[in-house]
Amino acid sequence: MSKKPKINAAILIIGNEILSGRTQDTNTNTIALWLNSIGVIVNEVRVIPDIELTIINTVNELRKKNNYVFTTGGIGPTHDDITAQSISKAFGFEYEIHKEAFKILESYYKKGEFNEGRQKMVWMPRHSNLILNPTSGAPGFYVENVFCLPGVPSILKSMLGGLKDKVVGGEPILSYTISLRTVESEIAKSLTTVQDDNNEVEIGSYPFFQAGKLGVSIVIRSEDESKIDICKTQILKFVNEKKIKVVDR
Amino acid sequence: MSKKPKINAAILIIGNEILSGRTQDTNTNTIALWLNSIGVIVNEVRVIPDIELTIINTVNELRKKNNYVFTTGGIGPTHDDITAQSISKAFGFEYEIHKEAFKILESYYKKGEFNEGRQKMVWMPRHSNLILNPTSGAPGFYVENVFCLPGVPSILKSMLGGLKDKVVGGEPILSYTISLRTVESEIAKSLTTVQDDNNEVEIGSYPFFQAGKLGVSIVIRSEDESKIDICKTQILKFVNEKKIKVVDR
Repeated sequence: MSKKPKINAAILIIGNEILSGRTQDTNTNTIALWLNSIGVIVNEVRVIPDIELTIINTVNELRKKNNYVFTTGGIGPTHDDITAQSISKAFGFEYEIHKEAFKILESYYKKGEFNEGRQKMVWMPRHSNLILNPTSGAPGFYVENVFCLPGVPSILKSMLGGLKDKVVGGEPILSYTISLRTVESEIAKSLTTVQDDNNEVEIGSYPFFQAGKLGVSIVIRSEDESKIDICKTQILKFVNEKKIKVVDR
Repeated sequence: MSKKPKINAAILIIGNEILSGRTQDTNTNTIALWLNSIGVIVNEVRVIPDIELTIINTVNELRKKNNYVFTTGGIGPTHDDITAQSISKAFGFEYEIHKEAFKILESYYKKGEFNEGRQKMVWMPRHSNLILNPTSGAPGFYVENVFCLPGVPSILKSMLGGLKDKVVGGEPILSYTISLRTVESEIAKSLTTVQDDNNEVEIGSYPFFQAGKLGVSIVIRSEDESKIDICKTQILKFVNEKKIKVVDR
């Protein structure tokens, strides 16, 4: 059985509003769930301010270290939207009008409404390909392995579907969760033994509070279902021995 | 009038569960709001996996570039909690039992309940100072300018109050928001003029949907209230001229 290679990505959230705490980022979660579902491992996430040099340096670092980079934010019509021009500089490509994007927005807006502000949104790095926007017209774009999406969560979500054929993942990462009515310290030692026995599998332990009661979710992740099954059996064995209750969550 | 120096920080979220999309991070927002309120500028946020070498390298990079680093996650009792030992290695300090932390947990737990798993939580880098935990006993710690907090949001929140005297901020960053019933492209040009006239002030533009209607929030940020006032006046002038409605948000 031939195995697909591991494919990884970085997510780069561009926006002062996240760093100031004004806005709670949810785009990381949206993109991470989508990437994991298509077999792309998210290696790291960064949040950076709307500063050109910071964007250039970060994009150049991340695009070399990862198969894909996904940026969010900074592609709108206002002065603080500097992602497209920064990415142009990162690649050393001209920042210019994208003809196809121009046509899309020209026909999207009523006559006279395709004003200067909106026209800014068709300026992109040369060699950009469009990411279509079924919600609000203005497309995102990608250059080589860097995909630039908007910051508004609902618009971003609506654009991911269009990337299906453009982002190629590896083996899907499978995950199985066992939730227990216990605390971490009760199972720490046994869980360590299971992890040591199965070092190719990623086992995480996450405490939670639910309906006033403490619990722990154990998450087993691997590309190989049979390896997950082995861990599952070993975990349920000690859970049984310790008379710990398995709960829904 | 003497001005306090600018103080900045990085936030480092450690945890596979954020990268897989299983968990929506909210700790960044909690810490960012708190830091901004005490005059600390958040320069960047990173989310990284539970991998020792990645933690070591990232902590060493960030602690040199920032006045403060705040980490979350990985200080519990299970095998995937490797923050304390990784930070020890980052500083080249012994990873050892912190006597004060031991005493705290010894008296926190009932006799016989201070088991091996829980005892793991008193292992810290040598030279650590404790960050007290009013919620669940186990303290966080800080070494030099690196502050290590837990990943569970409610516990983390309860611990920030105890850091008041340990984290010294600069001038508080003031912020004023004007929300408008308009779209960004209508105000982009005028707003650029205001930003160009006031380049020491940070002006952000954020579209929103509220009760089925589009709007834009303009956020003006500065340490100097009089500079915010100047921008406010200039913005309200063009808003008035364009007959755009100011809305509550």
